[in-house]
Amino acid sequence: MKKLNVLIFVLLILMELSASAQQALFGGQEIKSPEINADNSVTFRFNAPDAKLVVVTGDFLPTEKITTPMGEMDGPGKAALSKDDKGIWTFTSEPLGSELYGYSFIVDGLSTTDPNNPFLNRDVASVTNIFIVGGGKADLYKVNDIPHGTVSKRWYDSPGLKMDRRMTIYTPPGYETSKEKYPVLYLLHGAGGDEEAWMNLGRASQILDNLIAQGKVKPMIVVMPNGNVSQDAAPGEGSDGFYKPQFMAPQTMDGTYEANFMDIVKFVESNYRVKTDKADRAIAGLSMGGFHSFHISRYYPNTFDYVGLFSAALMPREDATGKVYNDIDGTLKKQMENGYKLYWIGIGKTDFLYDANKEFRQKLDGMGMKYSYTETEGGHIWRNWRVYLSEFTPLLFK
Amino acid sequence: MKKLNVLIFVLLILMELSASAQQALFGGQEIKSPEINADNSVTFRFNAPDAKLVVVTGDFLPTEKITTPMGEMDGPGKAALSKDDKGIWTFTSEPLGSELYGYSFIVDGLSTTDPNNPFLNRDVASVTNIFIVGGGKADLYKVNDIPHGTVSKRWYDSPGLKMDRRMTIYTPPGYETSKEKYPVLYLLHGAGGDEEAWMNLGRASQILDNLIAQGKVKPMIVVMPNGNVSQDAAPGEGSDGFYKPQFMAPQTMDGTYEANFMDIVKFVESNYRVKTDKADRAIAGLSMGGFHSFHISRYYPNTFDYVGLFSAALMPREDATGKVYNDIDGTLKKQMENGYKLYWIGIGKTDFLYDANKEFRQKLDGMGMKYSYTETEGGHIWRNWRVYLSEFTPLLFK
Repeated sequence: MKKLNVLIFVLLILMELSASAQQALFGGQEIKSPEINADNSVTFRFNAPDAKLVVVTGDFLPTEKITTPMGEMDGPGKAALSKDDKGIWTFTSEPLGSELYGYSFIVDGLSTTDPNNPFLNRDVASVTNIFIVGGGKADLYKVNDIPHGTVSKRWYDSPGLKMDRRMTIYTPPGYETSKEKYPVLYLLHGAGGDEEAWMNLGRASQILDNLIAQGKVKPMIVVMPNGNVSQDAAPGEGSDGFYKPQFMAPQTMDGTYEANFMDIVKFVESNYRVKTDKADRAIAGLSMGGFHSFHISRYYPNTFDYVGLFSAALMPREDATGKVYNDIDGTLKKQMENGYKLYWIGIGKTDFLYDANKEFRQKLDGMGMKYSYTETEGGHIWRNWRVYLSEFTPLLFK
Repeated sequence: MKKLNVLIFVLLILMELSASAQQALFGGQEIKSPEINADNSVTFRFNAPDAKLVVVTGDFLPTEKITTPMGEMDGPGKAALSKDDKGIWTFTSEPLGSELYGYSFIVDGLSTTDPNNPFLNRDVASVTNIFIVGGGKADLYKVNDIPHGTVSKRWYDSPGLKMDRRMTIYTPPGYETSKEKYPVLYLLHGAGGDEEAWMNLGRASQILDNLIAQGKVKPMIVVMPNGNVSQDAAPGEGSDGFYKPQFMAPQTMDGTYEANFMDIVKFVESNYRVKTDKADRAIAGLSMGGFHSFHISRYYPNTFDYVGLFSAALMPREDATGKVYNDIDGTLKKQMENGYKLYWIGIGKTDFLYDANKEFRQKLDGMGMKYSYTETEGGHIWRNWRVYLSEFTPLLFK
């Protein structure tokens, strides 16, 4: 096809596309935002000739105190952009450390995403743009030119919950063609999350691909189920259709999920080429998923040799009624007596669950139950959970 | 956990969440948008007390003429919202026919997505909200409570292109546990698309799940490769990282993809439990993917018994230089002589490719090559391609 023909084809297709695509072609200059500069500063641009104030807000800026009915708390930082004579607003950050960052704009008080950046992450019901600054730990979050595992969305039958449910499964590079059996990590999301969260917000497949390619992590299958037993799948992916996700789905922490978790293990062990002994099973989760991992691993006290509690929601809950919560101390003691290879606890210094985790560690100390402990900067944020996954997985199945 | 404990947990987590999540809790009332009413009218809501004008624009509204450097053309319709005394803007549409619709807002001239609807589709570099009105053909686009196939993102090696590339593969319900071999549909995207397009914009897995459950479509594997040979994967999913997608990637229509297509077929046929004869292979695509399907099916003239050209970009191109484009008439004649079961052409009455498709049909008529022809309302839009997929797949492998 001649170049001219291609151009005509493009123009004709744009005739039938959205207004924004037409603006991209006919509305003047092409804007690049965000632009990661050579020194790892990042330039944000926004086209709004008539706006009075354009602000960028995100976790790449120092936090700011905000006032709420619950008192003063940390909010994401903000920075004002400057307008040039063409109506393009610009802000360039300080050089940034290697990280996956999230941001959005506020234009005359209105929150909006960046129309020049189609890469978005949904966290509960909020959608923000993302970008990655490489050259450090966030290189693990990038897709590099290395062998890649397969990521599947698959439905399994849960006899206990009497429903078909959706899960995400990562199989490592070579799984399909090898005859080998693999160990399995069950990786659980937090409140407001679902079977998409560890992939999208947690960059789990990129972290696994990269660490396996570096020889630091043993090839393993990673199973990411949906911990909200009232859903068959993530919002928009299940039979409830499209609806605005809520932070806490019903029945997420009442014991139902934990009591039926073996439906997931049985499905995986009868449908994938996996090793089925305790030494080849790990379970880990963040926040509510840490709560689930704690309860599942002691409720089935001879099932997992590796347990990871990432900023776990270890709240006092002596009053819980589900049968899962009976005899916590007894099952924990049983788990200790049965033995395990790693009980890993990680939390950020400013996490609101810091004290609950400290109490929990004191409890473990008191009963002589061994654990490995990692304390990081920061709070209850995905930034920490990606790091915890990157630190936890190299310790598994060795 | 007591309800009070759960509430505290939620509040504490929100302390560490984004500003928008905090607004959702502390900023007052919860807004539902869009809301599909009992009569299938749809109500849109937007919170902007200080805005002067809030407009919704989308394909659920009658098109409007817009003026561009290329002359007058159809643009998406627009409707103004009305503000109530709390600063909430509202618009309710007419009752809508069953369809998957896209929309966004324009607030005082600024395009923005709906902060109360986290369901978004990316088309090239544009992101818009979506919703589904059921009760008709769009019920096929919903996730219903029926058996579901597995959707995998898998990387394959292309020796011809000397790269690992990503594809999407749909395997039908029961594939993993059956011993049966399945037929394969290769389903190709258009310019600006990638291996994500048929799933996200085309609702391919929902359409297949639903039609298979209804007994209208034979269980089949659907392979959705990436037709841009300069990419290893969709924007953001490959080693090029995050960048603003362009409408036409380099080398998309120069013959390279078509000439190396058998790398994909060989990978699928050696990695999946599939039937490997012509009677069990179909190829179809939209726009540029229709162009690819046309050329691949005649370049390998004894390979596919089923060919689908959906709004195919059958542009005059006698000057093309790639070896794929040599002797088009001869290979087409060969394909006709070898025989096939279905050559399916579909196009919208107002598609800018209507005349090119008409000329192509005249050419086929002239040489006595049989085809099936479907003409629909509308133009070069996903709305038609979802319908074509729903009509084409029941005809396959019978």
